[in-house]
Amino acid sequence: MSSGVKQRLSEFYSTISDDLDRSVEFWLKHSVDEEQGGFFQCLDADGEVYDTTKYTWLLSRQVWTFARLYQDMDRFRLPNILEVAKKGAEFVMKHVKNPENSKCYFSLTREGQPIKIQRTIFSECFYVLAMSEMYRVLKEDIYKKEAMAMMKQIVHWVRVDNSGLGIPLVPPKATSSLGVPMMLLCLIDQMETMDPAHGANFNDLADWCIARVLKHVQRNGTVVLETVSEDGEEVGGSAGRLMNPGHVIEAGWFLLERAGKSGNEELQKTALETFMLEAFHRGWDTEHGGILYFVDVDGRPPAQLEWDMKLWWPHNEAMIAFLKAYKHTSDEKYLEKFAQVFDYSYQHFADTQKGEWFGYLSREGQVKINAKGGPWKGCFHVPRSLMMCEQLLHEILQTQ
Amino acid sequence: MSSGVKQRLSEFYSTISDDLDRSVEFWLKHSVDEEQGGFFQCLDADGEVYDTTKYTWLLSRQVWTFARLYQDMDRFRLPNILEVAKKGAEFVMKHVKNPENSKCYFSLTREGQPIKIQRTIFSECFYVLAMSEMYRVLKEDIYKKEAMAMMKQIVHWVRVDNSGLGIPLVPPKATSSLGVPMMLLCLIDQMETMDPAHGANFNDLADWCIARVLKHVQRNGTVVLETVSEDGEEVGGSAGRLMNPGHVIEAGWFLLERAGKSGNEELQKTALETFMLEAFHRGWDTEHGGILYFVDVDGRPPAQLEWDMKLWWPHNEAMIAFLKAYKHTSDEKYLEKFAQVFDYSYQHFADTQKGEWFGYLSREGQVKINAKGGPWKGCFHVPRSLMMCEQLLHEILQTQ
Repeated sequence: MSSGVKQRLSEFYSTISDDLDRSVEFWLKHSVDEEQGGFFQCLDADGEVYDTTKYTWLLSRQVWTFARLYQDMDRFRLPNILEVAKKGAEFVMKHVKNPENSKCYFSLTREGQPIKIQRTIFSECFYVLAMSEMYRVLKEDIYKKEAMAMMKQIVHWVRVDNSGLGIPLVPPKATSSLGVPMMLLCLIDQMETMDPAHGANFNDLADWCIARVLKHVQRNGTVVLETVSEDGEEVGGSAGRLMNPGHVIEAGWFLLERAGKSGNEELQKTALETFMLEAFHRGWDTEHGGILYFVDVDGRPPAQLEWDMKLWWPHNEAMIAFLKAYKHTSDEKYLEKFAQVFDYSYQHFADTQKGEWFGYLSREGQVKINAKGGPWKGCFHVPRSLMMCEQLLHEILQTQ
Repeated sequence: MSSGVKQRLSEFYSTISDDLDRSVEFWLKHSVDEEQGGFFQCLDADGEVYDTTKYTWLLSRQVWTFARLYQDMDRFRLPNILEVAKKGAEFVMKHVKNPENSKCYFSLTREGQPIKIQRTIFSECFYVLAMSEMYRVLKEDIYKKEAMAMMKQIVHWVRVDNSGLGIPLVPPKATSSLGVPMMLLCLIDQMETMDPAHGANFNDLADWCIARVLKHVQRNGTVVLETVSEDGEEVGGSAGRLMNPGHVIEAGWFLLERAGKSGNEELQKTALETFMLEAFHRGWDTEHGGILYFVDVDGRPPAQLEWDMKLWWPHNEAMIAFLKAYKHTSDEKYLEKFAQVFDYSYQHFADTQKGEWFGYLSREGQVKINAKGGPWKGCFHVPRSLMMCEQLLHEILQTQ
């Protein structure tokens, strides 16, 4: 490693570490609902609440974030960090899950009354994240029991019978969505982190997930589509040509993790070249910078009005992915990509004055939603990315 | 009327009339599915099909559009126009409605197999539009019977029992959505046009709709909100502060029509001042021109990523509204607003080379989705607006 690279890595480390402090401070100060429990997510640029609806994906993810900060980072091993995680977990256990059928709600009133349910597994997956991380911290069996039971339920819905998720008025054609096996890979990693004694328990499920994710690679590895048929064929139409580059890059680092654990070199190559580099190549906006939200792989008109916006989370995921890739390979081309995403993000997303990132920019890079949180953005992608990048940078700098 | 105004009106007339020809030609040439029946909606800038999914709102609306063009405009009283309407109506009758429960699908495969159902009344309302207009043209009882039966069913769902629409997993809190009574006002006007013998049959329903629409007027007439409580109170939060200026302006011309029929001067004043002028004032983007898609009336962060985009249809509706307002009042301030919307639209939306308008612009006025049709844009708002504006301009010019 040249001294120039080392210098740059130290600068990344310092910027990211400061930014993580600001992000945690922001959520600590503004999101906690002292009166009713749980967290507010709809926070404007200054942190003021503009809607009291509580979104369960984000409630559970914030519990995970605070629990992990406490558990894994010395400077956040503080009573107030633990307190926020515990009180959040209490609200989640009390209000998020319907105990009759284990289905989790999508949104709640401030007081915790259900507003909406989705016919997907994601509210449930984030419930597992929250519970399993709380078990890591507190070693109280109730959390582990909740995490294990919900994990089992999710696998049943995905692999055996999905009728418990609620059947739509017209049953949809069976297709494969990239998000489902990706999410399960994330959960497997989490379950193994919660309890290393799991050993090979999840290997079969992990293999199933990897095979499933790889079905989405099409056209000789040049595209990774969001939706394909059960048989791994293109389904056509706008939905069938849709690619979400940030999502694919995120899948890239999930696969890289798995490849590292199992020593699968071919999978590592696919993760790096197809999921990271090809997707980045397709998604990066050469004119204005930043990663496009959606791409029609044939350049046809996208169905999503927001297709050319720059969203925060693909940039968070790309930072993790390229830094992991650099650590695994020591190939500086990955570090260059990391730097490209880092520079764009700190020029456009990060609010270094008031803390946390803005979430939604125009194609040209202007802030379009003047808020730090909303129905889909809470305390998760930014701190998770900063925490992981800080740890990775630390390890890289240590080993040199 | 000054000669300057008369000159301007003639220029509007000529531009609009030419543009209507191009729009009709575009849909005639590119949308008709000769093989499977019905219409394609996903047409790119050149008219090429990029997705064969058929959206029933747009199928039925295109039937209405072609039937009305044939019925009401001499230069479109042509066999090929009638043929398109008839074949479209055939496909709609065959595939859109589930005969078991009268619920209509939202989207179909190219062949007409159901893909999706919505838990709303809109697919059904557009079915009434299509059937009733076909009856006007052909005087065949089957169309009238279909229209009347579906109208009855819709009124039952809205006023008596909505359980037939499909109950969501968490039953929502009862609120009033501006779209529902607005849509019914549109249908009442359509039913009276289909059969003037209806006389006062729909007066009670119309009064109910008007009362319902007026509940959405809040804060001393300065805002008209999309969603209010059943009692006509603000519901708070992002959803409760949401205003869709184009939608409100459209409601304005529906109310103005109704006020004209019933001679209700107070309603006319509300339609003109609150629904048209106040909404236009809130929605017009003084920096870049055009009508914003969504506004949070307290200036808080909107939940919709597309809030500041410029969509075609609010401009179509505003053109109808302000021209009707000018015709009713002879007040030139309405003509100025019409001209403002007309100028923006012909500088940004209309494709005078290849026909039809683009649908989705950035805040700055650039085309963001390079297509003429998609899941929500078909053969309806543009030709309806141009047809109505041409007729209004003709009448205004005649009477001077």
